[in-house]
Amino acid sequence: MQQAIDSIMVPTQGQGLYEVTRSLLVFVAGSQLSTGLVTAYVRHTSCSLLIQENADPDVRTDLRGFFRRLVPEGMDWLTHTTEGPDDMPAHIKAALTQTSIGIPVSSGRPVLGTWQGLYLFEHRAQPHRRELVFHIIGE
Amino acid sequence: MQQAIDSIMVPTQGQGLYEVTRSLLVFVAGSQLSTGLVTAYVRHTSCSLLIQENADPDVRTDLRGFFRRLVPEGMDWLTHTTEGPDDMPAHIKAALTQTSIGIPVSSGRPVLGTWQGLYLFEHRAQPHRRELVFHIIGE
Amino acid sequence: MQQAIDSIMVPTQGQGLYEVTRSLLVFVAGSQLSTGLVTAYVRHTSCSLLIQENADPDVRTDLRGFFRRLVPEGMDWLTHTTEGPDDMPAHIKAALTQTSIGIPVSSGRPVLGTWQGLYLFEHRAQPHRRELVFHIIGE
Repeated sequence: MQQAIDSIMVPTQGQGLYEVTRSLLVFVAGSQLSTGLVTAYVRHTSCSLLIQENADPDVRTDLRGFFRRLVPEGMDWLTHTTEGPDDMPAHIKAALTQTSIGIPVSSGRPVLGTWQGLYLFEHRAQPHRRELVFHIIGE
Repeated sequence: MQQAIDSIMVPTQGQGLYEVTRSLLVFVAGSQLSTGLVTAYVRHTSCSLLIQENADPDVRTDLRGFFRRLVPEGMDWLTHTTEGPDDMPAHIKAALTQTSIGIPVSSGRPVLGTWQGLYLFEHRAQPHRRELVFHIIGE
Repeated sequence: MQQAIDSIMVPTQGQGLYEVTRSLLVFVAGSQLSTGLVTAYVRHTSCSLLIQENADPDVRTDLRGFFRRLVPEGMDWLTHTTEGPDDMPAHIKAALTQTSIGIPVSSGRPVLGTWQGLYLFEHRAQPHRRELVFHIIGE
């Protein structure tokens, strides 16, 4: 049994879903492990991770639209407001999605379904560099 | 240290929670591992996974009811509409729940609490066959 | 490759976020593993887990406020009501957050970001004792 760990930086340009599936596949292939468990983990609390459909880009547009409506800026009861109107909504959107996702690996590939991709979901309006850690264990 | 991986097909008959706890227990028992980590992963983006109460079936009814109200069909701002009125709401409900759940294993059993069961949460109205991957690593 | 498993009891005094980062760090340090994957798992369906900002306590206040507004008590269509007005909302809040979180470990520490902490999110009003299981595998 062996393991590997690495991190990548993902530059973001405002709110929305950024696909990182290719980076995940490269990491898993580089580990040369055939069967195991790969974990993606994002080291921030104002962006998050999602497995979502990679076929129609409209899905990503609508996901962003739903979360913007569910957690709008300007909720007047918020108390954490010093970091900008998009900061506390960003934390809430992160709480509603995932910080960490584990995916089994078989035949040297994560067992993503045909239409599944791994996405970084950026919740802040300004550009950021987001650190994503990949870990794999297996043989 | 050893591992095992397998997948099951779960037939669904419309929206709601389908318990898969027994399949999880059978997989863990079959691995003959005593201590470790088991991961359940669903290879689709219009259904998802949940750990929920397995005592009162009303809990499942109400969960389905809440998500149907939170993410109703017919939101007129959606752009991804070609796959039916329940498709984009299904992706959103999947984003709000989980695609992957890891559960520690002790004494040969996942450490589910007394009232916890593992559920596939189907978000589409039509019947589907859903693929669920189980992976365990331990000794 | 080695592993360790342990559980802690977290006393809660009503709804809100209770930080358990220190317990996680103590568990990982005690395992003496340098690289691996640590999993936190909560054995209940009316509380949950979150990675959230550990800097400004207002973030926790606002998270609690958002979830109370998103899933209010007194939704008159609920059917699971025998365990109190906060019980079914608690299950829904748990479904919207996490029961299990995996975090890679590097240099003997979980790779939490600078501002990230691990929290138990209590959704019931009455005091409870919550069991949290930690598992680590690595070397």
